[in-house]
Amino acid sequence: MSHLEKLQEWLSSNNYQIGYVSDYKNIQYYTGFASDPVERTLALLVFADQDPFIFAPALEVEAVKEIGWKYPVYGYLDHENPYEIIKHQVLQRIKAPVRWAIEKNNLNVARFEQLHEKFPQAEFNGNLTPVIERERLIKTPAEIEKLKIAGKWADFAFKVGFNALSTHRTEQDVVAEIEYALKKKGITHTSFDTIVQSGTNAAEPHGAPKPDYIQKNKLTLFDLGVVYQGYISDASRTVAFGEIDQKTKDIYQVCLEAQLTAQAAAKPGMRAAELDKIARDIISNAGFGEYFIHRLGHGMGQSEHEFPSIMEGNNLELQPGMCFSIEPGIYIPGIAGVRIEDCVHVTENGVEPFTHTNKNLRVLPIK
Amino acid sequence: MSHLEKLQEWLSSNNYQIGYVSDYKNIQYYTGFASDPVERTLALLVFADQDPFIFAPALEVEAVKEIGWKYPVYGYLDHENPYEIIKHQVLQRIKAPVRWAIEKNNLNVARFEQLHEKFPQAEFNGNLTPVIERERLIKTPAEIEKLKIAGKWADFAFKVGFNALSTHRTEQDVVAEIEYALKKKGITHTSFDTIVQSGTNAAEPHGAPKPDYIQKNKLTLFDLGVVYQGYISDASRTVAFGEIDQKTKDIYQVCLEAQLTAQAAAKPGMRAAELDKIARDIISNAGFGEYFIHRLGHGMGQSEHEFPSIMEGNNLELQPGMCFSIEPGIYIPGIAGVRIEDCVHVTENGVEPFTHTNKNLRVLPIK
Repeated sequence: MSHLEKLQEWLSSNNYQIGYVSDYKNIQYYTGFASDPVERTLALLVFADQDPFIFAPALEVEAVKEIGWKYPVYGYLDHENPYEIIKHQVLQRIKAPVRWAIEKNNLNVARFEQLHEKFPQAEFNGNLTPVIERERLIKTPAEIEKLKIAGKWADFAFKVGFNALSTHRTEQDVVAEIEYALKKKGITHTSFDTIVQSGTNAAEPHGAPKPDYIQKNKLTLFDLGVVYQGYISDASRTVAFGEIDQKTKDIYQVCLEAQLTAQAAAKPGMRAAELDKIARDIISNAGFGEYFIHRLGHGMGQSEHEFPSIMEGNNLELQPGMCFSIEPGIYIPGIAGVRIEDCVHVTENGVEPFTHTNKNLRVLPIK
Repeated sequence: MSHLEKLQEWLSSNNYQIGYVSDYKNIQYYTGFASDPVERTLALLVFADQDPFIFAPALEVEAVKEIGWKYPVYGYLDHENPYEIIKHQVLQRIKAPVRWAIEKNNLNVARFEQLHEKFPQAEFNGNLTPVIERERLIKTPAEIEKLKIAGKWADFAFKVGFNALSTHRTEQDVVAEIEYALKKKGITHTSFDTIVQSGTNAAEPHGAPKPDYIQKNKLTLFDLGVVYQGYISDASRTVAFGEIDQKTKDIYQVCLEAQLTAQAAAKPGMRAAELDKIARDIISNAGFGEYFIHRLGHGMGQSEHEFPSIMEGNNLELQPGMCFSIEPGIYIPGIAGVRIEDCVHVTENGVEPFTHTNKNLRVLPIK
């Protein structure tokens, strides 16, 4: 059964007439059509007992047809009211469209009000967000294949980045080298802004690369990933550029132990919160607990913002096909920042990482 | 009066107690703090008669302080309920927080429901979206300065791109050269995915660069821009790589005439729809009307998705300080695509462009 058929079945068995899919990544998941409409309206309307249709900005209609979408696609011009056209098409199919399910985590209040205005009798009680998240939580073998290839490109990017470290380059220069090498290989998009942080800059866990030169005898943190056919990679490595002091080495080893132990322990049946605790306990017992200020990991697949969330309080049981990051970090302001991360998929017995760049402390020669 | 003070005044004079700003670009506009929280919660709470506060993911709190934000900032950890903390902080300030204004075009239904759940007695009738859009519609001189610098970097990018055209490079390779050159200069972000399209590929107005080699004796279309201190540029040029045929030249000249005529005619007091019509009539009278399938322009500033929209049906009067694109395009499937675009700001008498790369047909030597 296709993803789309499953969604139709869910609508039918939950007594909804219409599912209104508005997140463009979910539209891609169900239709293969990949496009971010930004402020324009793009929607997939799925019916319990009718064929679906795509509604798109006029200038995207050709592109929808080109991907081989076999159902109707309707366009609207910038000066037209998209919801008026949607109303017309829905009423062609259903006389009294009352029972709707919408993506509550995607549709904004203004658009919801516009839709509601066109269907004043309708009830929008259904929430597609958890339904789609649950569906997307377990990746198919075809999806995992793409994630593996995306992972290989992250390994390639690390190699470029490690080679690019130089006291003559800034953090931003190293980012430029990595992204240039990827683009020349036909990888058009990174999955997020590539992070390269040297020395104390790495202690800012969400900081951006700066025009600061790479510091010798300090750690440099890389966090990067690419998009491959709509699927991403995401991995972090922290390397020494020259010799680092013992305290910094100790921090690295604690973070590494937390990462390796969690990755070795992860398996089906374990709860997400348990896995977080395994890594967190190691860091806390070493006295660095207060410096590990984010969850152990996030789900990933089409983006790095999927489920499951590997954190305290999440009692979800890990299952084969789930994909997520294992990324402990220790950030000591003014001293150093370390993060070591692989994304993995859960197998029958454990987990397999998508990235394979060695995680032992790498000491690169100063140049 | 600062942007923030104006918003407080609006709340006060419209009898709202609280304004809940959730779009991170608007938070940047009001506070200077620039960060996309993605799936996490970031909000600016503004009060009619209290000091505002920022609510942010814990790992962003330091960064908020670093920019010199002089009011409180509260953080939350991933396992905490952000709305519970917001509730607590709001109740510290207001006993009965009832009259709220929210950003209806930003807040999604799920987040709205969570917020509402914490404040069941509250009314969320106020819509900040049009208020903020109106405020952001007229750019200050300081904003226009940044837009001018962003425009200079777009001119630089065109130069790199024109020089990079080669039968040995693909469209994606040319993008790689442009973005590499920008990054080496410290420009870390483009304002959207750089577009380079050669030959018939350019007839897809929203298509992405392909791994196709640049074609000689055809047009190549560039659409690009950068982010400079939170403000963007956006410009398009279409150039001939070698000699092009007469029909293609004719299409170019029609598009150019539409662009130049509209840019020369634009001035305060004119309605947005009128300006669209000036360009559209030229293209229609030349017989290409059906191939100009988007509005003439969009507002811009912090992003390329602002107001005013220069299109049929928009009766908004242009005023000094408004910034928008003037970008007629003619896309004939299988033949060619041309788009010529400058973004401009309205002055007392007319408009001034942010980009200055010559728009006459440029014929580049084949290499």
